[in-house]
Amino acid sequence: MLQALVIGAGNFGATVALEMAAKGCEVVVIDNDHEHLDDLRDKVGRAILGDATDKMLLEKFVKGMDVVVVSLGEKVDASVLITHHLHEMGMKRIITKATSKDHGEILKIIGAHEVVFPERDEAIRLVSTLVSPNIVDMIKISEDFNVVEAAVPQEFIGKKIKDLDVRKKHGIQVLAIKNALSGKVNVLPDPAYAFQADDIMIVIGDPENLSKAK
Amino acid sequence: MLQALVIGAGNFGATVALEMAAKGCEVVVIDNDHEHLDDLRDKVGRAILGDATDKMLLEKFVKGMDVVVVSLGEKVDASVLITHHLHEMGMKRIITKATSKDHGEILKIIGAHEVVFPERDEAIRLVSTLVSPNIVDMIKISEDFNVVEAAVPQEFIGKKIKDLDVRKKHGIQVLAIKNALSGKVNVLPDPAYAFQADDIMIVIGDPENLSKAK
Repeated sequence: MLQALVIGAGNFGATVALEMAAKGCEVVVIDNDHEHLDDLRDKVGRAILGDATDKMLLEKFVKGMDVVVVSLGEKVDASVLITHHLHEMGMKRIITKATSKDHGEILKIIGAHEVVFPERDEAIRLVSTLVSPNIVDMIKISEDFNVVEAAVPQEFIGKKIKDLDVRKKHGIQVLAIKNALSGKVNVLPDPAYAFQADDIMIVIGDPENLSKAK
Repeated sequence: MLQALVIGAGNFGATVALEMAAKGCEVVVIDNDHEHLDDLRDKVGRAILGDATDKMLLEKFVKGMDVVVVSLGEKVDASVLITHHLHEMGMKRIITKATSKDHGEILKIIGAHEVVFPERDEAIRLVSTLVSPNIVDMIKISEDFNVVEAAVPQEFIGKKIKDLDVRKKHGIQVLAIKNALSGKVNVLPDPAYAFQADDIMIVIGDPENLSKAK
């Protein structure tokens, strides 16, 4: 399993550490705020109180790590400095959280292998669900194709997939149907299947057509 | 199109406002920091400098709004107070950003219709992609089913879907294939299709089997 070092145990860092530990990874967390560490102490391998901008401290813990996640919130200077140190130490996988586009670009230049923008990405997801009210979640495949989890439009209920002809009419294809009550998932449903009121559909297609198919 | 009020123009709020405006929504933003508003002024309907915990100010702008998004970062007290005021004013859709589980629970009790946790949710997504290295993005459908965008495992390349028999062997089903270079998407590929090195597959199935099918 992965050995991971997580620097910063705020919201994002703590969730990364807990999720990885829950999946069996060996996780070491460093934070300079003992309150952040209190909740983690029993749940991750090691919770270190310390300043990760201190190169000596950092060096102690990077050895053998498969991945380092740097998540320092608004502390842009510290996240840049630590990412730089990690790059110099030859870390093979550095993932750093950015708070702005500029921050993200600088992180890439100095050696972050991946830059994550949790606030921005979740905001974009939220707006997708607001503007197309049926959409629950989505994966963007390309400009023209999304995989979307969406509530079944009112006018589909009781009708058969083949009769609705969504493929031709809306350019979308039904990949699976989940019943929201039973949780049962029907992968590649029969065209003779008639939508029920509690169905959620997983479709693939052009996002513009999807929002029209309300 | 939607009329939206966005309270707080930090990272999350600003992205929500810009994305909604770009999709044709009428957006009003309130923030008490003029620096936050400077970047938004030309791109959203109105950018108001003011304190949204002031009920009188808030009342001026909620009228006619379809949705209010409250995004005040670490200012838990202000986000709770504003959500409470909005609920009292009868707003039909209040979405508030939470920074912790407790914060989220309180927001629900006092009247938020939806609570969003950008940091937590993106952290969970990141860990999924770290622990199962091929996974690019995913939608969790149920405990047993995810829709996953994943790199094609090395040992699949050159082989036909029907010969790999992934459905029986791994309990997953290939819904679509995207070529990473051309961007071409092949929905419900023919079972005789042979995977190419630059293919990304979109599959549905049990996440445990998916991470084994590396």
